[in-house]
Amino acid sequence: MPVNYSTPAPDQIHAVAGVRLGVAEAGIRKADRRDLTLIELAPGSAVAGVFTQNRFCAAPVHVCKQHLATHAIRALVINTGIANAGTGEPGLAAANATCAAAAMLLDLRADQVLPFSTGVIMEPLPVERLKAGLPAAQAGLRADGWFDAAHGIMTTDTVAKVASKRVSIGGQSVTVTGISKGAGMIKPNMATMLGFVATDAAVGQPMLERLVKEVADESFNCVTVDGDTSTNDSFILIATGRGEARFESVGAAGWDEFKAAVTAVARELAQAIVRDGEGATKFIEIAVAGSRSREEAKAVGYAVAHSPLVKTAFFASDPNLGRILGAIGNAGIADLDVAKVKLWLGDVLVAADGGRAASYREEDGARVMQPAEIAVRVDLGRGSHAAKVWTCDLSYDYVKINADYRS
Amino acid sequence: MPVNYSTPAPDQIHAVAGVRLGVAEAGIRKADRRDLTLIELAPGSAVAGVFTQNRFCAAPVHVCKQHLATHAIRALVINTGIANAGTGEPGLAAANATCAAAAMLLDLRADQVLPFSTGVIMEPLPVERLKAGLPAAQAGLRADGWFDAAHGIMTTDTVAKVASKRVSIGGQSVTVTGISKGAGMIKPNMATMLGFVATDAAVGQPMLERLVKEVADESFNCVTVDGDTSTNDSFILIATGRGEARFESVGAAGWDEFKAAVTAVARELAQAIVRDGEGATKFIEIAVAGSRSREEAKAVGYAVAHSPLVKTAFFASDPNLGRILGAIGNAGIADLDVAKVKLWLGDVLVAADGGRAASYREEDGARVMQPAEIAVRVDLGRGSHAAKVWTCDLSYDYVKINADYRS
Repeated sequence: MPVNYSTPAPDQIHAVAGVRLGVAEAGIRKADRRDLTLIELAPGSAVAGVFTQNRFCAAPVHVCKQHLATHAIRALVINTGIANAGTGEPGLAAANATCAAAAMLLDLRADQVLPFSTGVIMEPLPVERLKAGLPAAQAGLRADGWFDAAHGIMTTDTVAKVASKRVSIGGQSVTVTGISKGAGMIKPNMATMLGFVATDAAVGQPMLERLVKEVADESFNCVTVDGDTSTNDSFILIATGRGEARFESVGAAGWDEFKAAVTAVARELAQAIVRDGEGATKFIEIAVAGSRSREEAKAVGYAVAHSPLVKTAFFASDPNLGRILGAIGNAGIADLDVAKVKLWLGDVLVAADGGRAASYREEDGARVMQPAEIAVRVDLGRGSHAAKVWTCDLSYDYVKINADYRS
Repeated sequence: MPVNYSTPAPDQIHAVAGVRLGVAEAGIRKADRRDLTLIELAPGSAVAGVFTQNRFCAAPVHVCKQHLATHAIRALVINTGIANAGTGEPGLAAANATCAAAAMLLDLRADQVLPFSTGVIMEPLPVERLKAGLPAAQAGLRADGWFDAAHGIMTTDTVAKVASKRVSIGGQSVTVTGISKGAGMIKPNMATMLGFVATDAAVGQPMLERLVKEVADESFNCVTVDGDTSTNDSFILIATGRGEARFESVGAAGWDEFKAAVTAVARELAQAIVRDGEGATKFIEIAVAGSRSREEAKAVGYAVAHSPLVKTAFFASDPNLGRILGAIGNAGIADLDVAKVKLWLGDVLVAADGGRAASYREEDGARVMQPAEIAVRVDLGRGSHAAKVWTCDLSYDYVKINADYRS
């Protein structure tokens, strides 16, 4: 059960002019499962992406990076079941064959197709089954296919993840809609397992490439479930230019509003992954301020978010808050002055002056540990930068899910 | 139940001339529990230590570092229940009061006493109860008190940890005996939660200070349970000089044999912590070779050892080996050539050429995942350095123990 997240109803999801989506059952790894998704983009769409920094990155990630350089992307093919990672040269051949097959169907060049895979690592992609499933996905292409596509890319997710916004910027309507998937092996370094966000605004290619990095840094690159950066993380931003708005330069009127809308959709999708994190019973925001740099604040946030001791204490709703101090002390800041560190849980000041705050009462700590959403706030007292990290707790079910996966 | 470790019988533990140990029930945090240990050293003993690099290091760690500079240590006081970490100035005062009380009893200066604490972080040390318990610990001082002391320093440990060796070096008898504790919050950066090793050999102070670092690097600094570096890690090496052997310089005859004996005892104690890791059902050795430096090999070893996905796969005995590749890819080696990486599980070659080895069969992987001890071997194919890391799996019981601790 995700923590305070449910999939929007289909009528709450805005179609994006220039984008159609179709889903099929290709039997990639299991039968009777929607495991193949095709996304078709109108000519002239700008596409930009960021990808995992895992050195064992998947074959489709390599192919995506090559194909994005064409600046003429017209289709995306996404399969679940098999990650096509740790598959060497045969894996690259399979990813290229996927693109070629989709291109033939859609009358494109192979390098106008981006391939994505998610699932088990180090097993071969059954590319013939994938190719055989493509015509059904093509036949199902619909502008209102976002809801089905969100289901089509799920693996251990318990809910489909969609976020959609329609805003008016300078009197012009802008639609931003996206989907994501992921529940485990989540500590995106460039982007999440899989995230796709499209807008009908027109955005120049260089601007879009800058935007996708900035948005990832404020959304997918701020979440973690288990600290395991996936081999397949990909976040793709699409601007079809089929709507009313047009942004010619970063300084253009309405750009900041537009960026805020895209960031809000991406953040909702990224947080949905954590809310649906494997075994999650709590959603935790860790806000770190007073750091010398944003990177330093993030390092502290991740040190807290990755500590199994902190995560199990959240699962137990136990204000065993010394574990958070221990994690802060491990964040790699060699000259941290612990006497200047302040720690709050919700509105309760927990630690100051190198130890427990004089005003702290155990019953206050116990109270703020109870809700399903918990805010941790840290002030390092050494600078003016800040960052937020979102994570979930570590429960029996995380172990159960990951001990059982594959079987 | 620890994985292939049980406490040696008292008659298998060699006393070390010049060391006496006593244990008492001081009621530090719970009643009817041996929670206070006193170790008395003969005059002239050399003592050296290494300590946690956690910035929120405990008050006793600060005091130990100061007192070691006297080169005249005569006693160690160890309490469980309360870590005296994250306790600010009052914590330092409590650690100093502990030393003063022990010094008064034993007719020493306060700076000849080293204090150690382990237990809950950010709660005050009940120093009056500790002081009240010291006379009973003193009354119980015995040369054969190692077995009881190993029990006296336990917290979530399920077995007491002792290692003891008597070797003959150049015709002279050398005894090395040690105890350790720890089961969770274990990823020593300088040393483990608490480890104490004593020898009756005479070793000069500068040599001992070098030796303690070298031994820690081959033992306590190679193990991890959950990646959480404790606030209290301390590893202390004592040379009483009351035995037959005397080492005047690092090049002295027999020095390498002596170092090997001390390292073997420390490694046995460090591995015992992993074998008794919270919830552990498997003991895993990760041997990384072909790296450009020892640090690089360790980074890869820890990346594998800390991955919750890898650890849960070991718990399930599931050869989901792509998770190990994923972890290797996340070890931070930016220019890793994945085509050169080889991965073995036991004697089975799992991965080569960037993917699954052609010879790999799932049934072989399943077979080598079954035993309680599993050897992972990685060759990075980029250099001639190597390192080993020891860890355990991640089970339901890890979550249970850490969700319940304190309650």
